[in-house]
Amino acid sequence: MKNKITLDLNERSYDIIIGSNIINELAHFLSEKKYSKIIVISDKNVNEIYRDYITDVIKNHESVVVDAGEQAKSFKVLEQVCEEILQKNIDRKTLLIAFGGGVVGDLTGFVASILLRGIDFIQIPTTLLAMVDSSVGGKTAINSIAGKNLIGSFYQPKLVLIELEFLKTLPIREFRSGYAEILKYGLIADKKFFQYLQKNYLRFFNNDQEIILEVVKKCCEIKAQIVGNDEKESSAIGSRALLNFGHSFAHVFEADLNYSNLMLHGEAVAIGMIMAIKMSQNLGFIKQVDFDEVEFHLKQCGFEIDIKKFKKNWSLSNLIANLYKDKKVENGNLVFILLSEIGQAFVKKDISLSEFEKVMSNFL
Amino acid sequence: MKNKITLDLNERSYDIIIGSNIINELAHFLSEKKYSKIIVISDKNVNEIYRDYITDVIKNHESVVVDAGEQAKSFKVLEQVCEEILQKNIDRKTLLIAFGGGVVGDLTGFVASILLRGIDFIQIPTTLLAMVDSSVGGKTAINSIAGKNLIGSFYQPKLVLIELEFLKTLPIREFRSGYAEILKYGLIADKKFFQYLQKNYLRFFNNDQEIILEVVKKCCEIKAQIVGNDEKESSAIGSRALLNFGHSFAHVFEADLNYSNLMLHGEAVAIGMIMAIKMSQNLGFIKQVDFDEVEFHLKQCGFEIDIKKFKKNWSLSNLIANLYKDKKVENGNLVFILLSEIGQAFVKKDISLSEFEKVMSNFL
Repeated sequence: MKNKITLDLNERSYDIIIGSNIINELAHFLSEKKYSKIIVISDKNVNEIYRDYITDVIKNHESVVVDAGEQAKSFKVLEQVCEEILQKNIDRKTLLIAFGGGVVGDLTGFVASILLRGIDFIQIPTTLLAMVDSSVGGKTAINSIAGKNLIGSFYQPKLVLIELEFLKTLPIREFRSGYAEILKYGLIADKKFFQYLQKNYLRFFNNDQEIILEVVKKCCEIKAQIVGNDEKESSAIGSRALLNFGHSFAHVFEADLNYSNLMLHGEAVAIGMIMAIKMSQNLGFIKQVDFDEVEFHLKQCGFEIDIKKFKKNWSLSNLIANLYKDKKVENGNLVFILLSEIGQAFVKKDISLSEFEKVMSNFL
Repeated sequence: MKNKITLDLNERSYDIIIGSNIINELAHFLSEKKYSKIIVISDKNVNEIYRDYITDVIKNHESVVVDAGEQAKSFKVLEQVCEEILQKNIDRKTLLIAFGGGVVGDLTGFVASILLRGIDFIQIPTTLLAMVDSSVGGKTAINSIAGKNLIGSFYQPKLVLIELEFLKTLPIREFRSGYAEILKYGLIADKKFFQYLQKNYLRFFNNDQEIILEVVKKCCEIKAQIVGNDEKESSAIGSRALLNFGHSFAHVFEADLNYSNLMLHGEAVAIGMIMAIKMSQNLGFIKQVDFDEVEFHLKQCGFEIDIKKFKKNWSLSNLIANLYKDKKVENGNLVFILLSEIGQAFVKKDISLSEFEKVMSNFL
């Protein structure tokens, strides 16, 4: 059971291999390349579970283990990891392997992009969120005092290896969090996929391997296509920016809670998408019935869509301050990704602050 | 008096404009682009001399000033500068201007490459060394505990503006340091240019504007051509790597002295080139007469080519340790840039350590 998708970026093209018990694909990849050294980067949680496994499947590697959680995406950890790796006498033929969730992937990719002005790295995501989103597309980053992911690079991996067996050790809350990004692909780009998810979500959440493979593959296909068209989010019509659907809203809440476990990224994105659809509705782009349909499905899947359940008293002015720190502000103007229908997103510039406030008043 | 060279890198192509009193070219460039914000980065020394000038020629800019010297190329300063700039509420249409020598240029380029995953920057070099070398070609970096320039990126500026008037405030020692990199271009790529320098060096050191323009232009042309052929130093025949001629030797001494002012970069490169030619001679690639000719010219120009004048007791084992930390080690093998004749350099792999020791014994 193996599927391969190629992300086409000319000389930066790479394969995304998806399946169960496919880790031998890694040995195949490594035998074709001639790396002088292999360094696996993981966090303490992943290392606890998979240390023996990694030792078994990646011969002669060295390890760097960082603290688990968002705090690893800091300048402090970036410096520590860079210096620790440089102490190992690496050269330009050294390979880094990001073995973990989105934090490990974002950090490792950034480290790979700046060590010796760029060395190879590959992504082996262990969470559903990382499999369908952060491991594909080459966005790497750490966080700044001023906001999340404000420091980083566009730097593509040489391979993304999505081993679905890892999902068996993933807690349900994290699994659900990943599903929010999955649903996003249906909402922004593929109505049929949204309908497929409506029909099959129960089998998906019950770990039906066939459905999981289909879903993860579809997400990677959509993301690969979008990134292939607009690698650096610079397209005038904003192709890659569509992937930020729901994220401007999500980030204002996550920032308020310091990106803590009080609200997982996917939990914030689920609410963010609901809010973005409400804004689309307020501006006359989409109907109430579509809003209701998405809200209903999120509830079906067990998402908490009442933002007040995460924190009782949100400060609107704090949320607005967070909004203006977000990368999606351009020349001081607010930019949101909206839906014109389910399966069809677009970039809307010059949104007034009062539109944001209006949506907030619907939910706070 | 204005000359324009284009560095051809497809969508990353840019102009290098060289001349006296050409700063109005900056206004022209800025009027064509629509930047939301302009931030000038300089060091305390440059800021002291040119603060009023910058205020005069770059309207509505904000400033970031770092400490002068190599210590600004550290993780600590990188973090400070990134956070200071992010506090200014930048967006992707923000422009950074590196106004200073090589340290400011290397740091600013790196900062530009990682802020919001990459924003525009331009180089306005104020030293001869930066004009003919570091401002052109997109190598950005900070230093690691493990060695110099080990953390950075390949990131091209949008414009390099070489205002020759700045050279009038440059101390002679720094001016001479820049000349070492100038001579390098003749040695590795253009025998006629080497002969031109032999003939005209006195007028060059006496600030003959016509000669200076010709020389700086020639260096930028050679560098632009080499970088255009091999932007990321990845060519199998090592085209861009030729620019490292003399640098493996230079770095072992500079590292020993902690990159302090005891030995300027160009002073180290001058000696490094002499040593690389000696190694070429030891291996039978070049004749004693060529070595003598280069040594004679460096002495003519006032270079100190006796390494013991910089420090009495060099430790060979320390120098060897520094050598192995250098980026030019590949799969554990030593790589040097050698000359087959004046004007013709090549990459030589698999050099044994004893060849390095032999050269050292000639000079230590």
